[in-house]
Amino acid sequence: MTILTVGSIAFDDIKTPDAYGMRQLGGSATYFSLAASYLAGVRIVAVVGDDFTTDDESILTDKGICTAGLERAQGKTFSYGGEYHSDLNLRTTHFTELGVFENFSPKIPDHYHDTPYLFLGNIAPKIQLEVLGKLKRPKLVAADTMNFWIEGEPRSLSQVLSAIDILLVNDSEAQAITGETNLVGAGRELIRRGPRIAVLKKGEHGALLFSEGIFFSIPSFPLLAVADPTGAGDSFAGGFFGYLSATEEQSVGNLRRAMAVGTVMASFCVEKFGVSGLLHLSSEDLHNRYRELQSYISFQDLDIDFIPHQRE
Amino acid sequence: MTILTVGSIAFDDIKTPDAYGMRQLGGSATYFSLAASYLAGVRIVAVVGDDFTTDDESILTDKGICTAGLERAQGKTFSYGGEYHSDLNLRTTHFTELGVFENFSPKIPDHYHDTPYLFLGNIAPKIQLEVLGKLKRPKLVAADTMNFWIEGEPRSLSQVLSAIDILLVNDSEAQAITGETNLVGAGRELIRRGPRIAVLKKGEHGALLFSEGIFFSIPSFPLLAVADPTGAGDSFAGGFFGYLSATEEQSVGNLRRAMAVGTVMASFCVEKFGVSGLLHLSSEDLHNRYRELQSYISFQDLDIDFIPHQRE
Repeated sequence: MTILTVGSIAFDDIKTPDAYGMRQLGGSATYFSLAASYLAGVRIVAVVGDDFTTDDESILTDKGICTAGLERAQGKTFSYGGEYHSDLNLRTTHFTELGVFENFSPKIPDHYHDTPYLFLGNIAPKIQLEVLGKLKRPKLVAADTMNFWIEGEPRSLSQVLSAIDILLVNDSEAQAITGETNLVGAGRELIRRGPRIAVLKKGEHGALLFSEGIFFSIPSFPLLAVADPTGAGDSFAGGFFGYLSATEEQSVGNLRRAMAVGTVMASFCVEKFGVSGLLHLSSEDLHNRYRELQSYISFQDLDIDFIPHQRE
Repeated sequence: MTILTVGSIAFDDIKTPDAYGMRQLGGSATYFSLAASYLAGVRIVAVVGDDFTTDDESILTDKGICTAGLERAQGKTFSYGGEYHSDLNLRTTHFTELGVFENFSPKIPDHYHDTPYLFLGNIAPKIQLEVLGKLKRPKLVAADTMNFWIEGEPRSLSQVLSAIDILLVNDSEAQAITGETNLVGAGRELIRRGPRIAVLKKGEHGALLFSEGIFFSIPSFPLLAVADPTGAGDSFAGGFFGYLSATEEQSVGNLRRAMAVGTVMASFCVEKFGVSGLLHLSSEDLHNRYRELQSYISFQDLDIDFIPHQRE
């Protein structure tokens, strides 16, 4: 099935202890779309500036991503500069220049209006609601958000939570939304506030899924070297939502598999610099890593009795 | 089979946001032994002061733990005071009074010399080596350590690593020993330095196991409320090592099950204050939580193809 995603496209200047990349194609919609493109047709609604070239666009179109919803505005594309330290969990932001993204007002092409799967990337909650209002009721709606909106637009965000099926956020965002420090408590509280499903992404520590009567926990895929953590969460979302749209079913088993596919996509993303890890994957690469992940996690039934030794 | 453990017994003053407990029986050997007692016979070698009562001892003996190796020295039992904050991952130490533990020189009763399973708790590496030297070669030797020894006694610690089968440490300790920030790198480096198996404990984020050609990752058991994180790592070790001694086999499948049993024990420990969560478990409690953990983690084979959508 086809997914429509609305979010940011950016040029990133990223420095890690081992590498430096300038003007890398990035942004949450880019990472999400590339990851999802291995599973579903993807339509992207975003804004870029007049510095965005045909070569930049072809990174998306080469993966079959439809860019009919890509608006070209006068001015500069959103750009971001940041640096990761030897502990790759720590990032310093050097600059954020919103450019044309500052006044982003998504224009949805007519033929996008009946897209069955909608992923609302991390944009203002009001704009997320606006996009949702324009579409014929999609089959499944997922959204992301961030601390800026959690603190600045709590009312609109609360409306978003009531209107979506799935919320995918970082653990710290889940804590900020709910005021719960315990992650199990935060996850349960999220599904009380609207979405049927909440996914908490914990970076290198994996992810948790909560739904009524359902809990699922998955560790991250072990990597000996992480080249660039940028886009990990968006790639996870792309794999997760891509899988649900490909299978058109949200059974417990499918939600679990979707979490594993998200984990696999995030691992390919961070293994290489920028988006490059998401560009040349074969079906075999993906299947092999899925099976490898499975083999790292599964364990068999217990074969012993507890307690007897206490009576020795 | 029977386990001998050498480590600390302490009285803990623990404050959490919700509770305060004074003179709680604690220490690494206490938590380890209580958890392991559900799986194996346990012999404890430790030192306590003249403030250690028969009631304190009966907490151990009630679980069938042999205290013939418990030395009573003149002076005070090791005592610790600490406080957890609303983020239970953060602990402030208020005091550490080593008391009789300062000059601990383990005395191994004669009938302990042929104990087949040895767990060297977090004591000076030189003393760990001394204990190991006194025993007839045990079938399996595991050890723990801490930053104090990693920084202060690197040579003796290196000898310990060469002499043991299994090292169980926190993720930050693994990073400190190896100088590797990447946990997969740190785990692999540890097994290059001696032990056949390395277990990295990540607290609420679960644990990783490394051995030649083997990797296993397990998340922690999800708890809506953690009463007191004290002793989680030692309870994990007790469950893990207890299972290996109960089954007398270190196949890949058994190592995985041992990690799950450790996870289960740690969850029972932190769910209640002090050691109380480890005192009244039934075989059914333990089996049920093991199966629950399994159900939170497992996922099925993939049932779709990747890629076709890129050619739309």
